[in-house]
Amino acid sequence: MSELADDVLKGKYPAKAHVKKVVEYIKAHGGEASGVIYLEGQKTKMNEDNDQEAPFRQRRYFYYLTGCELPDCYFTYDIAADKSTLFIPPINPEEVVWSGLPMTTEEALEKYDVDAVLPSTEVNGYLASSETSKSTVFAIPGQVSDHITFLPFGETKFDSLKPAIEECRVRKTPYEIALIRAANTVSTAAHTAVMRAVSHATNERELEAIFLKTCIERGCRNQAYSSIVASGTSAATLHYVRNDQPLSGKLNLLLDAGAELECYASDITRTFPINGRFTQESREIYDIVLEMQRSCIEMLRAGVVWDDVHAHAHEIAIDGLIRLGILKGQREEIFEARTSVAFFPHGLGHYLGMDTHDTGGHANYQDKNPMFRYLRVRGEVPAGAVITVEPGIYFCRFIVEPYLEDEKHAKYIDREVLERYWEVGDNVLITEEGYENLTDTPKQVDEMERLIMG
Amino acid sequence: MSELADDVLKGKYPAKAHVKKVVEYIKAHGGEASGVIYLEGQKTKMNEDNDQEAPFRQRRYFYYLTGCELPDCYFTYDIAADKSTLFIPPINPEEVVWSGLPMTTEEALEKYDVDAVLPSTEVNGYLASSETSKSTVFAIPGQVSDHITFLPFGETKFDSLKPAIEECRVRKTPYEIALIRAANTVSTAAHTAVMRAVSHATNERELEAIFLKTCIERGCRNQAYSSIVASGTSAATLHYVRNDQPLSGKLNLLLDAGAELECYASDITRTFPINGRFTQESREIYDIVLEMQRSCIEMLRAGVVWDDVHAHAHEIAIDGLIRLGILKGQREEIFEARTSVAFFPHGLGHYLGMDTHDTGGHANYQDKNPMFRYLRVRGEVPAGAVITVEPGIYFCRFIVEPYLEDEKHAKYIDREVLERYWEVGDNVLITEEGYENLTDTPKQVDEMERLIMG
Repeated sequence: MSELADDVLKGKYPAKAHVKKVVEYIKAHGGEASGVIYLEGQKTKMNEDNDQEAPFRQRRYFYYLTGCELPDCYFTYDIAADKSTLFIPPINPEEVVWSGLPMTTEEALEKYDVDAVLPSTEVNGYLASSETSKSTVFAIPGQVSDHITFLPFGETKFDSLKPAIEECRVRKTPYEIALIRAANTVSTAAHTAVMRAVSHATNERELEAIFLKTCIERGCRNQAYSSIVASGTSAATLHYVRNDQPLSGKLNLLLDAGAELECYASDITRTFPINGRFTQESREIYDIVLEMQRSCIEMLRAGVVWDDVHAHAHEIAIDGLIRLGILKGQREEIFEARTSVAFFPHGLGHYLGMDTHDTGGHANYQDKNPMFRYLRVRGEVPAGAVITVEPGIYFCRFIVEPYLEDEKHAKYIDREVLERYWEVGDNVLITEEGYENLTDTPKQVDEMERLIMG
Repeated sequence: MSELADDVLKGKYPAKAHVKKVVEYIKAHGGEASGVIYLEGQKTKMNEDNDQEAPFRQRRYFYYLTGCELPDCYFTYDIAADKSTLFIPPINPEEVVWSGLPMTTEEALEKYDVDAVLPSTEVNGYLASSETSKSTVFAIPGQVSDHITFLPFGETKFDSLKPAIEECRVRKTPYEIALIRAANTVSTAAHTAVMRAVSHATNERELEAIFLKTCIERGCRNQAYSSIVASGTSAATLHYVRNDQPLSGKLNLLLDAGAELECYASDITRTFPINGRFTQESREIYDIVLEMQRSCIEMLRAGVVWDDVHAHAHEIAIDGLIRLGILKGQREEIFEARTSVAFFPHGLGHYLGMDTHDTGGHANYQDKNPMFRYLRVRGEVPAGAVITVEPGIYFCRFIVEPYLEDEKHAKYIDREVLERYWEVGDNVLITEEGYENLTDTPKQVDEMERLIMG
């Protein structure tokens, strides 16, 4: 963790600032200026058929306005009074015997950036006796429990709160940026540990084990997403999650994995040679991917149109593949034919925050242009957004074959391509003046080779 | 993994044998002799608010009759024709691009012990054209999807299949025992790795990281339950799951953790000194707990009444605590007063299988006798059952205090007890002649001390 991130994180998660931001957003978009925001956290859930708890994942909308990771909580914010109240589970004497003392309301008030904390048994009473019963209530559809009985009293608006939070989440506050930076620091340690181990490991799962161990011992118990630890042709499967194949005889490893820290994600991808030396062919392709990334990151600043950055990645890819003889023809023609989508089929990147594919972005999965169909962010990227820049070049049978069978594309492609893949992905903060790369995981060829060869 | 377990596991998971066992059970308990068994596996589920898959856990009823770990599958068994059919997800060309080829029906027929495999798109058609539409259908309540339209045609029985599977699961087949044994082997490696690391670790989470790494690199990606890695007084919280406290200045570590292998659980508990040397007091209590376990395991054989074994553990505990002066009075009196429940508040053990707290057992959580209220197995234990034997002695404020305030108990207890805990737990197979302990994780004082001191 950088010292800067460290300092910011000494304070509380800025829940109150997030609430105000959301209220401002609702007002600015023609909503009412008064009323009550009502949110529920995720409930404890059991496995379907036994007595064990299912893995818990806090609702992100709730976390954004509370910073509270506990299950079975509730939240209200009285807009006119500017008062936020968190409701936490009461002490259950039966439970204390087995699970120890839960957090008290005093401890919660100390820990979270809210104005009051009450036991959750008081939610209904509080709502009935407060201004809520006469107010407009802003809530999220499907996230109001049946036992909450205040709703009939006021008018409940289900259309504005969720989109307001989703849009506000795009521009991160300094605390959020510090969390993503800290998650990146942990992930970098884990990526580096895998690089150091890869030349003497025998199976992908040993490397996944090292990645997870490194994250857990540094305080990140959850991963932002299922790790992809793919050797050889496994890596041509973009969403590979088996992570159980032997490494022997394989050329490269693709590691796409990121720790989660206090509900905030990191998302880092590296590709490197298992024996510590890039082959000439690997190096040639990897250099194109690195150049796609470098050149795209250079374009970043507040207001940049993400579609343009993505298109630029394709141009660099086309230039590089022409140079290697894998594509044949003119850059503009190939770009217009969308042939490069065969080798770079996914989007350049996505917003990153509490979700790995964070809110906002306005993707259009119905886009008729295949080059932009899977692009998760469209239009202008604002200052304060954190976005991944993760270009790749893949030679994947299932993806390339239809192109080879289509004469529109086939004339541009050399058929001698094999199942291989190269990808590199960082997390980048957009600023007014430019950008800051939050990821310092090694990606230069000589640095990775040194790490792997020990 | 022992060679024996290894050999058994070379074959298929005995799904067909399990089906026949279940049918025999239904017949033996007055059910009909013909009809069709219908089961659904767990569906792919997404996180509530984003585009990521939630952690997947196969339905145990489905796994028991199929051995199939894939999501979104279906199963039928025609009793008269003795024909089992597994339905697996079809190939979705959109998905192949991202996730690679799914398992084919041919591969599934090769891998699973079923008579036929069809794509799941054919479930309704198959059911409509088969004898099913005219048969009694045995299904599990709440586990029939709306899109399954065959049900109105026949008579559906929802009362017998679930309890039949639950009872059949108690007596394990050799393949199941081999899986539990193999899971134990992995867990033993992980427990041992923690013992080797404990004296130079600084935080509980580093030890949890080592435990998980050791399991994952050996092929166990899931844990049977949330690990408890509790140092010092943390361990007096029986269901402690924070695993994030510093080890400095703490006396003992309690490690309650077990790998899951192909849906089968292990459940092992060890307590050991963090610096590698039991204090005299620790050693005195630990010896009582070890003797409780040894003496209880000695009683085990087919038909033993688990209530008696549990009561025996209390007797040994009382004897030991009298010897140390922590309890005062006559063994019988203290036993009858249930005072020892203050120190050994939970049950001696539970069945172990696909669930950590496995099916069967017939617990009575309403039992007025506090000594037996939390005992998860009541009555006779049959041959083939795998049961945990996990006695403990705890000095936990929340548990002991009410006893100290009750004159019925207070006269027997020395008040100088502090917050401490000792527990040891193994997984034991019941046989006709006696038992076999499937857990060979070190538990003798000298062996643990040697491991920790390196």
